[in-house]
Amino acid sequence: MAASVDLNADLGEGFGAWKLGDDEAMLGLVTSANVACGFHAGDPALLLQTCREAAARGVRVGAQVSYRDLAGFGRRFIDVTPEDLTADVIYQIGALQGIAQAAGTAVTYVKPHGALYNTIVRHREQAEAVAAAVRAVDAGLPVLGLSGSVFFEQARQLGLRTVAEAFADRAYQADGTLVSRREPGAVLHDPVAIAERVATMVTTGRVIAVDGTTVPIVVESICVHGDSPGAVQIAAAVRDRLRAGGTELSPFS
Amino acid sequence: MAASVDLNADLGEGFGAWKLGDDEAMLGLVTSANVACGFHAGDPALLLQTCREAAARGVRVGAQVSYRDLAGFGRRFIDVTPEDLTADVIYQIGALQGIAQAAGTAVTYVKPHGALYNTIVRHREQAEAVAAAVRAVDAGLPVLGLSGSVFFEQARQLGLRTVAEAFADRAYQADGTLVSRREPGAVLHDPVAIAERVATMVTTGRVIAVDGTTVPIVVESICVHGDSPGAVQIAAAVRDRLRAGGTELSPFS
Amino acid sequence: MAASVDLNADLGEGFGAWKLGDDEAMLGLVTSANVACGFHAGDPALLLQTCREAAARGVRVGAQVSYRDLAGFGRRFIDVTPEDLTADVIYQIGALQGIAQAAGTAVTYVKPHGALYNTIVRHREQAEAVAAAVRAVDAGLPVLGLSGSVFFEQARQLGLRTVAEAFADRAYQADGTLVSRREPGAVLHDPVAIAERVATMVTTGRVIAVDGTTVPIVVESICVHGDSPGAVQIAAAVRDRLRAGGTELSPFS
Amino acid sequence: MAASVDLNADLGEGFGAWKLGDDEAMLGLVTSANVACGFHAGDPALLLQTCREAAARGVRVGAQVSYRDLAGFGRRFIDVTPEDLTADVIYQIGALQGIAQAAGTAVTYVKPHGALYNTIVRHREQAEAVAAAVRAVDAGLPVLGLSGSVFFEQARQLGLRTVAEAFADRAYQADGTLVSRREPGAVLHDPVAIAERVATMVTTGRVIAVDGTTVPIVVESICVHGDSPGAVQIAAAVRDRLRAGGTELSPFS
Repeated sequence: MAASVDLNADLGEGFGAWKLGDDEAMLGLVTSANVACGFHAGDPALLLQTCREAAARGVRVGAQVSYRDLAGFGRRFIDVTPEDLTADVIYQIGALQGIAQAAGTAVTYVKPHGALYNTIVRHREQAEAVAAAVRAVDAGLPVLGLSGSVFFEQARQLGLRTVAEAFADRAYQADGTLVSRREPGAVLHDPVAIAERVATMVTTGRVIAVDGTTVPIVVESICVHGDSPGAVQIAAAVRDRLRAGGTELSPFS
Repeated sequence: MAASVDLNADLGEGFGAWKLGDDEAMLGLVTSANVACGFHAGDPALLLQTCREAAARGVRVGAQVSYRDLAGFGRRFIDVTPEDLTADVIYQIGALQGIAQAAGTAVTYVKPHGALYNTIVRHREQAEAVAAAVRAVDAGLPVLGLSGSVFFEQARQLGLRTVAEAFADRAYQADGTLVSRREPGAVLHDPVAIAERVATMVTTGRVIAVDGTTVPIVVESICVHGDSPGAVQIAAAVRDRLRAGGTELSPFS
Repeated sequence: MAASVDLNADLGEGFGAWKLGDDEAMLGLVTSANVACGFHAGDPALLLQTCREAAARGVRVGAQVSYRDLAGFGRRFIDVTPEDLTADVIYQIGALQGIAQAAGTAVTYVKPHGALYNTIVRHREQAEAVAAAVRAVDAGLPVLGLSGSVFFEQARQLGLRTVAEAFADRAYQADGTLVSRREPGAVLHDPVAIAERVATMVTTGRVIAVDGTTVPIVVESICVHGDSPGAVQIAAAVRDRLRAGGTELSPFS
Repeated sequence: MAASVDLNADLGEGFGAWKLGDDEAMLGLVTSANVACGFHAGDPALLLQTCREAAARGVRVGAQVSYRDLAGFGRRFIDVTPEDLTADVIYQIGALQGIAQAAGTAVTYVKPHGALYNTIVRHREQAEAVAAAVRAVDAGLPVLGLSGSVFFEQARQLGLRTVAEAFADRAYQADGTLVSRREPGAVLHDPVAIAERVATMVTTGRVIAVDGTTVPIVVESICVHGDSPGAVQIAAAVRDRLRAGGTELSPFS
């Protein structure tokens, strides 16, 4: 079993008067914060506050980049051209870099959000567009994503470091991709079962897919969702279960 | 007469399918480009293209920050709180820094746009909020604005360098502020008269206000508008007239 | 004491993934629903669902019109021109009329939201612009607002019916206007005290202002806020207290 | 040859400071105006002005509904759920009905815009969602679209009247659908050739596709684009050529 693993969550996902999740509690549990960049969520004042809190807690900040879609929370595929997508992602990374700088911290990785995340598992043009954006801003920024994805292929071709994550509370398909949120059973809810599942992933490098097959899985980081009901309980359960098994939480190196 | 003066214009002010001004022609004339940051205008792909073109032409890039108001083109006062305004400005500067970085250049100054520009001539809280934002991102970034403004006072108090600009094609009030665009005669149109007026400003440090009084004016940079009809002709006329008088155009130092 | 009074609340104020308030519970308590129109809150799917639920419960629907400001939740003054404001309000009323029609109900009144509400208590140009918008869509639509406001003056001049409301949970100034949300003590929180205060308003036509003076107040409708913590408890307490005093809740006639 | 045919164009497609096309000239030529509804273009003040001008010229107004995508001008497919799409379309139709009412006219048909138009040629769920929206607002509103499309199938199943249009300046594929704007040759530019092509469409009910095959085409209305360079010249050429051949322009009945 790994001596340590990273725990990441999506944070800063409110907007103006609207709140989402309990960022403060999550920042006490995770080691990496995927902070929204304003395109699917995150007004600048919230992002600044989130980055300040992350800095105070010693939690690393990553840029959670998305399609431009506040009304859809970035959960809808948009057939944006690669040129526009690259510019959109550069803009978002830069914006969060400014915010992080003002908060006394820095953006240290990039993670695509929602529909963009799922799309570039297979969509080569958009995958390449996202990877190109990261490289254009800072070729030293690693990308967080799905092992075996086209996105990782493209990112490596452009010389980017890839960090493979597993999802604590999402169901997997037999090919290692996630079950769509529109499907029943896509999101798991029981903290104990989730914690056990994560411990198995970390220990064995395997997960059971929805069709019962066993799927190999690379786990350099564990993603817990910040906006699920019970998110804090789930994150705490995962952390406690991993520690009980001898795995500490620490940022990916 | 000054041996050289800076010529700046607002660029990158289209959005998606909508164009505004002739950026390419303007980039052949100005020495500093106030590039929009997406809050009043400027989709990321346009900003990237504008920064690339500026880099290719050796034109310096500044961040033209605004209230969040695409529908109003940033021309309407918004009673935003200082905390929100600071975060909004940080976000915009960061976003353009990312874009500029990807384009092989850098953001080297900040200039408020439209209603924000006019508001912080007198509105101390918002002036302080904008200055605080610039300092939070990079205390070495100068700000472009109106000499004698509360914004400049606040900026200097925070240790920022201020660069005073004069407007080539805008009417002045007796107190040295601009006549509102909602008033008749606020915008001048004749290239020859504008060029002559600018030459007088640069030579004498004075301008004639709408009420006929002579107003002292500090001119470290000349602003020409990129979106006026005849903007290119005006910029060219100003450049030619200044050169004829022995003043070269070069970026403020 | 009046035999009956209207109880209104702001509803449909989420946006996409973001929820606000407990609309379903509030619809079981109020007699008039001020449904957002998309400019400060309210994505169309939520608005449709809210109108359907209101129709099912026999709750009347009004159009809660706002400045265009999702990021500020319509709580920031915007210096929009009267022409633009009139068109913005027409657009919003029409949009909600379409939604209401599809939900089997109709828009039966108009209520300005947030900063727009507060602004047109005194700002004559914007007050006239809002009243003109209502008349342009349907001169038979009453407007809900503050008695003694410039808005009501303008609305009456244009032949609109005005319905005066009192705020259950907001502090009043000596001139009968609301204390700004930016001030401490602007919003009351204790359900019992609020219910008692409302009963006094309805019975006596008076309210105690923050400076201790007694202010006359016209009460054709009572506004309870749907987004305060404890909103449902407050609305229920108000209803129960009014009923105990012999005042039934029913829509304004 | 038909005694008369409708000529429609997309209008009201600016936004705030941004202009697009020459609406005034186009309103002197067309018989039906597809007015934007704010989701891909069209701020309310522009929409109001466009509807007033249409009313003054006796040009019929239709609601040009779109995906919510200002940055992409509605030209990018968005994988929106049918429920959200139905609500989005209802909202847009309602909004323009309010505007049209205020302008002294009315919305008399609905036409999907851009990527939505193209998507529902084949995408059954989204086609059904749009048709359901139209019926929910007013089952008497005809829809303008492509003959043979899934959208027309769904619209007829819901009891809506369909009006088939042909595109004056767009290239066709062999299956009767349009060549994507991302392909070269998708948009035709020569007014004389376009006018001749339209005359042939109207006379013969046929058009030559990009692969040279002859495709049957139903023409109850002719669409000319308002935003192409030369749009006014094209519309005028089409009108003159049709008149020369004995076909008058008049709204579809």
